[in-house]
Amino acid sequence: MKTQAPSTEKPQAVEITQKITPWEVEGDDEGIDYDKLIRDFGSSRIEPTLVEKIERITGERAHHWLRRGLFFSHRDLSSMLDNYEKGNNFYLYTGRGPSSDALHLGHLVPFTFTRYLQRVFKAPLVIQLTDDEKFLWKDLALEKCHELAYSNTRDIIACGFEEEKTFIFSDLNYIGHMYPNICKIQKCVTFNQARGIFGFEGGSNIGQVAFPAIQAAPSFATSFPIPLGGSVEWGKTKAAKNFPCLIPCAIDQDPYFRMTRDVAPRLGLLKPGLIHSKFFPALQGSKTKMSASAVNTSIYVSDTPKQIKKKVNKYCYSGGGETVDLHRKYGGNCDVDVAFQYLYFFMEDDERLEEIRREYSSGRMMSGEIKAELINVLVPLVENHQARKKLVTDDMVERFMAVRKLTY
Amino acid sequence: MKTQAPSTEKPQAVEITQKITPWEVEGDDEGIDYDKLIRDFGSSRIEPTLVEKIERITGERAHHWLRRGLFFSHRDLSSMLDNYEKGNNFYLYTGRGPSSDALHLGHLVPFTFTRYLQRVFKAPLVIQLTDDEKFLWKDLALEKCHELAYSNTRDIIACGFEEEKTFIFSDLNYIGHMYPNICKIQKCVTFNQARGIFGFEGGSNIGQVAFPAIQAAPSFATSFPIPLGGSVEWGKTKAAKNFPCLIPCAIDQDPYFRMTRDVAPRLGLLKPGLIHSKFFPALQGSKTKMSASAVNTSIYVSDTPKQIKKKVNKYCYSGGGETVDLHRKYGGNCDVDVAFQYLYFFMEDDERLEEIRREYSSGRMMSGEIKAELINVLVPLVENHQARKKLVTDDMVERFMAVRKLTY
Repeated sequence: MKTQAPSTEKPQAVEITQKITPWEVEGDDEGIDYDKLIRDFGSSRIEPTLVEKIERITGERAHHWLRRGLFFSHRDLSSMLDNYEKGNNFYLYTGRGPSSDALHLGHLVPFTFTRYLQRVFKAPLVIQLTDDEKFLWKDLALEKCHELAYSNTRDIIACGFEEEKTFIFSDLNYIGHMYPNICKIQKCVTFNQARGIFGFEGGSNIGQVAFPAIQAAPSFATSFPIPLGGSVEWGKTKAAKNFPCLIPCAIDQDPYFRMTRDVAPRLGLLKPGLIHSKFFPALQGSKTKMSASAVNTSIYVSDTPKQIKKKVNKYCYSGGGETVDLHRKYGGNCDVDVAFQYLYFFMEDDERLEEIRREYSSGRMMSGEIKAELINVLVPLVENHQARKKLVTDDMVERFMAVRKLTY
Repeated sequence: MKTQAPSTEKPQAVEITQKITPWEVEGDDEGIDYDKLIRDFGSSRIEPTLVEKIERITGERAHHWLRRGLFFSHRDLSSMLDNYEKGNNFYLYTGRGPSSDALHLGHLVPFTFTRYLQRVFKAPLVIQLTDDEKFLWKDLALEKCHELAYSNTRDIIACGFEEEKTFIFSDLNYIGHMYPNICKIQKCVTFNQARGIFGFEGGSNIGQVAFPAIQAAPSFATSFPIPLGGSVEWGKTKAAKNFPCLIPCAIDQDPYFRMTRDVAPRLGLLKPGLIHSKFFPALQGSKTKMSASAVNTSIYVSDTPKQIKKKVNKYCYSGGGETVDLHRKYGGNCDVDVAFQYLYFFMEDDERLEEIRREYSSGRMMSGEIKAELINVLVPLVENHQARKKLVTDDMVERFMAVRKLTY
């Protein structure tokens, strides 16, 4: 990782007509322009050659979200893979802000993809639950946010992570271990810089202003002296200094890690690599991210088959023709049809997906039929998740959240 | 403590020609105007009746720093004493920013006075070492600040605190325990408010901006679930909610606690009481606070008798006449004579002090003589400190800094 190029990130806000911050995602009338995001953020596109490289290294076909361009952008992934081939593994870091008990399908995306990465790269993984962040931003009691961190952990474990390689932590529990790194990051970032990157204002509370350092800290292995270093004392984990971090996340989280990458060399630490996903669309359309708080914009992993059917049939934005005749004549528009887009995420069978695209675009497949296809995919997906979640015991939650050395 | 009057503090900056913040103390040409500070900060003067009340309750003569008005200002001390008489004890909180290995005489003032309060009120005590703060403000490595917290602890223990009643902690070690309260305080304070109180600017780092919550947190007993509550889990210490806090500190620390007192009712917590000292003057004169970094402005607790003699004779600002004749004729000015002011702090014998004042003011006692008096007081004071410090073992440091239930 010593061969990393000098920083080309701009930590300051980029000029974008679409507004993408960790707290707000607003496309223009055309939806989100992901090409423009890559240009504005200064990240790199995941080209087919990079997907092939992943396949070569892992010895298996790439995850369909890579093949389909749903994970579409990265930072330093290619050079991290080169290092991986030389025997230098990385660890994975992802997270969630626990503001609600109910995870929706969009929340599964980073976790499902991270599980894939953990499996194929045999990588240790840390998962941050930012209960502190949710308290600082939302009208919620601290105790409630902390409870949600635990209940969310059950859903995360149900995604199938390997216990001996995975450390799930609540900031409220774990902050003390990361605090030396947090201080070092905070010292490198001025209020003006944080305002430029995150849009803070004079009325922002001082916890919000300092929070970016808390989301940045897990990007450095030295924040995990025990899980990744096996050492109890902070400052005694020099080995971890050269342990690089790869962060799978939705592109809206990138500002945190642009800041982190800007700070890293000043701390003598490695810049984390990133792999960015597109947003999972709301039932009402692809222009926004789903909201965990507006019940009918999302399908939850706790929904019943009946609820899923109803939501898909009633709320799922259709790209079909206005009448049967118009649909037969002009066909459906897969680019805006939410049922098709959900299938694009969750139907693994490439051939069947292409068949549906052809049939629907041509007008031979009706809107009700594509929705039925989606229901047939989502109901077992959600039922399987619920079945796995039922197997998650209190004891497992405790074990995944225990500060202990990971095995890798 | 339920009878506390509604907040009359202004958390915003007060209009003062003299500039007093936790990082800067600047009087005007007349020195520090303490009456004006009381008016501007909105604190209360410690009147003779309050000193008498302390004597009545403690059953002994008040500390000479109370009798001599060196601890001159307070917030809520009188009502806390009323509650103490009803059987409701308070705990004490004081602290130090460990930016240097060498404590000077001025640093002893809050600790010596706190030791007195601990003894006469049988109160448990927490001492915060803000190693994080010093890192965020100074050009020092984090590891260095953390080391200084430990070496400073030896000097603090040497002040004579009772081990079973005293918890000394480094923020870097202990932050996790206080973090729930820190988050709650941070959520109540905007950047604009912090800027108003502490003078932060756009170029302040985000750690500095958030730091006031870290100095505020020990004002609430719920930040000490184990030392003051005996409970391991945070949030389970409801009893501690009604345990009031009394903070002895120099008046320049008051902005932190004005903010804390403003926030307290919104968190359903008790406002801390305060007892403020005047500044201990530099050798060069009373217009500024001493600086731990400018060697010849201070007498250190590590100085040899020879160094003390030299510093007093060479650097101690004299209020004596310019020539022997002028001194004999007009006398010395005790109000600006630093030797007299040091005696005013450290000579416990009231009668002898008054005698020196009379003799020096009248011109009968010469400048060299008053300096000799001071040397006679300081040498044994410092030697005794050094002797006590020699008895401080690594094991004692560990015990004072161990997170454990205090006995009280």
